[in-house]
Amino acid sequence: MKKTFFALLFLNGFLLFAQTNDEKIIKEIYKSALTNSKCYSWLDYLSNNIGSRLSGSASAEKAVYYTKAELETLGFDRVFLQEVMVPKWVRGEKEVAYILDNKIKTNIPVCALGGSIATSKNGLTAQVIEVKSIQELESLGDKIKGKIVFFNRPMQPDNVETFVSYGGCVDQRYAGAKEASKFGAVATIVRSMNMRLDDFPHTGNQSYGDIPKSQYIPTAAISTNAAELLSKSLKNNPNLKFYLKQSCQQMDDVLSYNVVGELKGSEHPDKIMVVGGHLDSWDLADGSHDDGAGVVQSMEVVNIFKNMGYKPKNTLRVVLFMNEENGLRGGKKYAELSKSNNENHIFALESDSGGFSPRGFSFECDAAKLNKISSWKYLFEPFLIHSFTIGHSGADIEPIASKNIIKAGLRPDSQRYFDHHHAANDTFDAVNKRELELGAATMASLLYLIDQYGIE
Amino acid sequence: MKKTFFALLFLNGFLLFAQTNDEKIIKEIYKSALTNSKCYSWLDYLSNNIGSRLSGSASAEKAVYYTKAELETLGFDRVFLQEVMVPKWVRGEKEVAYILDNKIKTNIPVCALGGSIATSKNGLTAQVIEVKSIQELESLGDKIKGKIVFFNRPMQPDNVETFVSYGGCVDQRYAGAKEASKFGAVATIVRSMNMRLDDFPHTGNQSYGDIPKSQYIPTAAISTNAAELLSKSLKNNPNLKFYLKQSCQQMDDVLSYNVVGELKGSEHPDKIMVVGGHLDSWDLADGSHDDGAGVVQSMEVVNIFKNMGYKPKNTLRVVLFMNEENGLRGGKKYAELSKSNNENHIFALESDSGGFSPRGFSFECDAAKLNKISSWKYLFEPFLIHSFTIGHSGADIEPIASKNIIKAGLRPDSQRYFDHHHAANDTFDAVNKRELELGAATMASLLYLIDQYGIE
Repeated sequence: MKKTFFALLFLNGFLLFAQTNDEKIIKEIYKSALTNSKCYSWLDYLSNNIGSRLSGSASAEKAVYYTKAELETLGFDRVFLQEVMVPKWVRGEKEVAYILDNKIKTNIPVCALGGSIATSKNGLTAQVIEVKSIQELESLGDKIKGKIVFFNRPMQPDNVETFVSYGGCVDQRYAGAKEASKFGAVATIVRSMNMRLDDFPHTGNQSYGDIPKSQYIPTAAISTNAAELLSKSLKNNPNLKFYLKQSCQQMDDVLSYNVVGELKGSEHPDKIMVVGGHLDSWDLADGSHDDGAGVVQSMEVVNIFKNMGYKPKNTLRVVLFMNEENGLRGGKKYAELSKSNNENHIFALESDSGGFSPRGFSFECDAAKLNKISSWKYLFEPFLIHSFTIGHSGADIEPIASKNIIKAGLRPDSQRYFDHHHAANDTFDAVNKRELELGAATMASLLYLIDQYGIE
Repeated sequence: MKKTFFALLFLNGFLLFAQTNDEKIIKEIYKSALTNSKCYSWLDYLSNNIGSRLSGSASAEKAVYYTKAELETLGFDRVFLQEVMVPKWVRGEKEVAYILDNKIKTNIPVCALGGSIATSKNGLTAQVIEVKSIQELESLGDKIKGKIVFFNRPMQPDNVETFVSYGGCVDQRYAGAKEASKFGAVATIVRSMNMRLDDFPHTGNQSYGDIPKSQYIPTAAISTNAAELLSKSLKNNPNLKFYLKQSCQQMDDVLSYNVVGELKGSEHPDKIMVVGGHLDSWDLADGSHDDGAGVVQSMEVVNIFKNMGYKPKNTLRVVLFMNEENGLRGGKKYAELSKSNNENHIFALESDSGGFSPRGFSFECDAAKLNKISSWKYLFEPFLIHSFTIGHSGADIEPIASKNIIKAGLRPDSQRYFDHHHAANDTFDAVNKRELELGAATMASLLYLIDQYGIE
């Protein structure tokens, strides 16, 4: 019994030491992020010197070389580019839209959806039919013919997690044109995916799926205030007309790159942990939240480890993915190369939900593994990180197919995210330096714990 | 045994029912706040139609009558004003400051601190001595004479809770002039209490304490960028001069009011629960976060209960306090009247930390009571409310002296608070509607639970 007692004491002492040491290191991680980080100035450069980074654009290419050069200052074993062919869509001239109601024109804030075709050069004018869903569209059948379909289901306000509300209405944007075309619509417009009422139209990807090219119709988003106005105007005059002109087009695919920095693991060089975000952004703003924040936070993780002199046991890769917004080609390419190289990924973490105050992570793993991870929660509590849930990780890391991989997504406070998402106000001034840094520290802390203890 | 078994089953069933019912009601509270609230439009009016509300100003008076009228629409048993004499300080003309370094003038964003005296009509010019603390000031003794003392200790960046950093350096603003005057300084300037580097000077209260009036010296805040510049300039040229001109003055006290709405308790009319914020704000902006948010959230609590048809068992008072910023006369008056009326307050909740995403509450109570309150935590978790700690409640409710009272403060995310606090950018556009509403729902939920179960 004595022996057991001492053994337990020893074990207890060891655990106590381990705990204390982890607490100390995580405190140091947060301190490093809040006092000695580079992420905010990296974001400043990405946003204000390079700007919007739509796949295939000159500025997306600049972002590749800028981040590669910055990664090269962080002491990686190697920094390299992964070639990937990406779609190139260009917006063309500023879109024009207005309501034509008894000869009164009311201009409407509008933007083409990514992947949409143009209208004819002179634009198109048609009556509008408002629907709240694709089901409602289908129920209207013949009434759609020759009309502009106006999808106007708002984001549900009573979800505390705004991403749930986004998931609940993004089908209107993504598949609205494809579905409306089947019934002979001439165009679709969609209420912007925005929780608040304002004048910003929000772009985003859409897909014509497998309908013939000849049936493609132009599709655009209008601001939430404009959606309210149009809906009200239609109640007064169902015969009003809507004018839309846009000149966007899909070009040939072009060569682009994922940017990768690799730090070889000191004990398990064959076990790979990925941390990343996506370099591309929509074209209406500089994409500071989506996903400049995730890019610079991923880079900051390594900066923090460097400042602390922490050498990961497992290989750590920072991956800055190209083309998340309109193709996911970068994410797919990374997974494809990883598979053909027989790589063993144990963990992947993406930050692609904005640079707001971090609240926790969502994990793609089973309940037992979440339990193990949740046993670290107390280490995060002093930093107000509290939410460890099962859920979506990140679009770019989704395709990675290692057998025992755990995937995670950083979950920042989501209330303001859709105020900026894919719109002209997703700009540097909307990011708070400390919130960005706290996100990076939270990511570094989780990576440290996974590196130390794994999740078996 | 069977009997016990059934008794336990019954008890269990009852608890299960109670739990389910609370979950249902709290869900309804959040839904009401997110879909059917008035707080954002109230704040719009307070901020954009009334504006800044410094005690004794015409707009503070307008705010009294506006909120009284709005409270009267909410079904209170009575809405009334509590007379209170408040200090009246006026800023006068826009302040002017510049660095004079080898005949080069550099203008500096500056604002007088609340309660400061003016400079002479032509302003004053003097050499500057930079210190990081009152202790350092004291150690310099005679060197202070004839100089402007520049307090430049920044808010500590590595506290996750920014209020801790505020507490760690606000003595420079509050007591800097009083202390520097003792050593013969001619004025003091203080680095703004702001976590970030920008060009906004942040005002706030200061006190000359009990030094004779003849020894009062002018005191002002400069922006954080200006503080960095001045510090750097002083390193290059310790003999540079600084010019300050301000024309603020303290007037006679004037009559003002707390605004109170009272809903009599259906079971315990003699037990009083208070929820409130403060009506007054600083004069540089409309005070949307400090504390327009707390005012409209407190009003919204009753709007939510009204929409749900919930009648509190205990008396519920919404109290909109006057003069938190530069005197706390409203809070003191409320407590004084409560004492002379022998009132029994069981609970007081203040929201005065901004309208940002709520994270939880800090409580002034003992550990046993916090334990009881913490047993409700699971009810808040679906709404991402996670932090229940011992700590400061709110300045206005501090003076209430009922024997068994528990006091609490809403704790929103604090990262952005000091970007706006007491500065010209504490404006309506800096408040997110949903974050404001979530705060109101969180307050209503806690009040509901306290009303139902008490904290004995």
